[in-house]
Amino acid sequence: MQLPQGFRFAGVSAGIKSRAGAKDIALIVSDAPCTAAGVYTTNQIVAAPVVLSRSRTPSSTTRGIVVNSGNANACTGQQGELDANEMTLLAAQSLPASSGVGACDFLVMSTGIIGRKLPMGKIRSGIQDAAKQLGDTHTHFLDACDGIMTTDAFRKTAHRSVWSSRGSHVMVGMCKGAGMIGPKMATMLAIVLTDAPLEATTAQRLLQAAANRSFNCISVEGHMSTNDSLVLLAQAPTQETPALDEADLAIFEAELTELCIELAKKIPDDGEGATHLIEIHVRGANTQADADAIARNIALSNLVKTAITGGDPNWGRIVSAAGYAGVPIQPKRTALSINQLPLFRDGEPMDFDAKQVSQSIRESKLTVIELDVGLGPGSATHWTTDLNTEYVRFNSEYTT
Amino acid sequence: MQLPQGFRFAGVSAGIKSRAGAKDIALIVSDAPCTAAGVYTTNQIVAAPVVLSRSRTPSSTTRGIVVNSGNANACTGQQGELDANEMTLLAAQSLPASSGVGACDFLVMSTGIIGRKLPMGKIRSGIQDAAKQLGDTHTHFLDACDGIMTTDAFRKTAHRSVWSSRGSHVMVGMCKGAGMIGPKMATMLAIVLTDAPLEATTAQRLLQAAANRSFNCISVEGHMSTNDSLVLLAQAPTQETPALDEADLAIFEAELTELCIELAKKIPDDGEGATHLIEIHVRGANTQADADAIARNIALSNLVKTAITGGDPNWGRIVSAAGYAGVPIQPKRTALSINQLPLFRDGEPMDFDAKQVSQSIRESKLTVIELDVGLGPGSATHWTTDLNTEYVRFNSEYTT
Repeated sequence: MQLPQGFRFAGVSAGIKSRAGAKDIALIVSDAPCTAAGVYTTNQIVAAPVVLSRSRTPSSTTRGIVVNSGNANACTGQQGELDANEMTLLAAQSLPASSGVGACDFLVMSTGIIGRKLPMGKIRSGIQDAAKQLGDTHTHFLDACDGIMTTDAFRKTAHRSVWSSRGSHVMVGMCKGAGMIGPKMATMLAIVLTDAPLEATTAQRLLQAAANRSFNCISVEGHMSTNDSLVLLAQAPTQETPALDEADLAIFEAELTELCIELAKKIPDDGEGATHLIEIHVRGANTQADADAIARNIALSNLVKTAITGGDPNWGRIVSAAGYAGVPIQPKRTALSINQLPLFRDGEPMDFDAKQVSQSIRESKLTVIELDVGLGPGSATHWTTDLNTEYVRFNSEYTT
Repeated sequence: MQLPQGFRFAGVSAGIKSRAGAKDIALIVSDAPCTAAGVYTTNQIVAAPVVLSRSRTPSSTTRGIVVNSGNANACTGQQGELDANEMTLLAAQSLPASSGVGACDFLVMSTGIIGRKLPMGKIRSGIQDAAKQLGDTHTHFLDACDGIMTTDAFRKTAHRSVWSSRGSHVMVGMCKGAGMIGPKMATMLAIVLTDAPLEATTAQRLLQAAANRSFNCISVEGHMSTNDSLVLLAQAPTQETPALDEADLAIFEAELTELCIELAKKIPDDGEGATHLIEIHVRGANTQADADAIARNIALSNLVKTAITGGDPNWGRIVSAAGYAGVPIQPKRTALSINQLPLFRDGEPMDFDAKQVSQSIRESKLTVIELDVGLGPGSATHWTTDLNTEYVRFNSEYTT
């Protein structure tokens, strides 16, 4: 994976997580002022780092991002706001004093347990430690990826090359799950870096559009987090390298959306205890928003999710979930298939081989549900996990 | 428990359920034409018996209800509609031919697996069998209660006496759960019978109001069923016994609401695998509807539910669930307590003894969550279950 020019990375263990040696601070620094765009949780209970970063994007003078995992700095009152700001101040001090960089030039993200004040002693020495270790190799990049993880079972990265009329650009992304994943927002922590030159307002528009087709279409249990943040850092245009033109932006946007989808899918694929990634295609709704609502309702049904866990073609659960999404469907023109095996058509149950459907679910990690509700051109694709005893055990035992 | 005069009951095993001898047909007959009101699922995918019963309420000439469990007669196309109507025709034939009673004078309910056609051979002989066994004793009543159950671990009944200016009236109710319980509807099958004389339109109004504070405030996993039906049968007013007046109706309505709450709470109390009944009081919302939305969002959060399973005072999950309910809250004036132990106040975490909170959750089946969102006079109470491995195992293994 080629990294975009101009960024340096570090990931260190500051002792915030209880597991010895687990990385819990990530620092990303841009050598020059860059363009930053951000999409954040729409929860009204919002963590201090989100309040801060939201106020600092879009921007064209951003110098980097500091992240801690193991503590969300959410519901922590006024002290939480002071702590989040201090994190960005410490990150700014990783650049030479002569550069004139201040706290406002950094963004901040936190993820972990809600309602505990940050252990600022550990955070301070962790950020200073990370500043000393900044580097631009692949290893440095992976260290930063590790620093943002919480209950993730595996690292989540993606990369793309964009060939515009101006030559080739590189785009890399990292994100983390794995619980408290709900739709209708920019979900969880994700960072995308590129050396393509973009204006701040353009970057913001492209990022929001990509989020709507990727991070806003995934769920694990549908609980909207207080901390979700998706940030894009891009090269700030200069006289020598002006911003991409409209034709190139269209190419860039398509690649950005694909990269965000690739990253986003990894989150339910790594949902706590997940044994299935469920891909839900809805077609035939009046509008895309209607299709989104139906796909989301199916994705959030514990009964649908447990049926997939059990390899059970209990399709009534899927059709009935579509029926209470609050948007029109046409029951008598509705059709459903699982893994391309048709189960329901025109309001009537079909004869099907239950063992064959069951086997198709059991033998693959991916289950594909296709539902056509028979009305119009609206379509959407969502991704979620199954729901199994491992998820419940995990979330019954997760601290406090 | 005293039964209201004028009703006869039966419950028999017709072999629809696979467990030998399990009762799966219930028949309730009124000796005289009675007032009937109904509240039904708002799912667009709606079972044939709901379509039929909905078209027959409110009414002042109803003669009874026939119910089968073990098969929902949902998503069964045109054959399902014919079968539901035949069930009411067979029920009508349990009354003397001379009575002039027809299929339209009976209501019908079904519950069980979705998408399978009714085994009409078994249903026909079951209803005929039930007709022969009709009786007005307590045992007959309990047989009918058993006939409507599916995965319920225990029978769900409630009764009230209403003292009006006209003397005393009796009200009894039965209902069944235990899965596919979502709010925003009249949930699951429930039947209330009374000898109080009520006009049909009045009965309908009182029943809807009672449902809004009871069956519409419970959930197990929030999946809205295709079959939910709540029906009230009351004495039809005559010249000798005219309908209750306004003052008496107010007394009756209060008792009806209390009875419906008592019945409704039994459903999450018996949620599949539930080890906790969670009672969620929301206060301080702008309106009752806003309070409902917040309480529902908390009730539907798998993360809140698994925290209670684990006896974990992970209150950030509760507060963050309130934050994405889509209605205003005032984070800095929000207060939360679990089992009367305060955890969060004025946007700041409180010092609390985590072991004490944890113990209070573990040592009681009932967990009480109280959330004040600091804005206005709106309040609501919802009930749900915890989410544990038993629920997941159960719903992964439930047929098809």
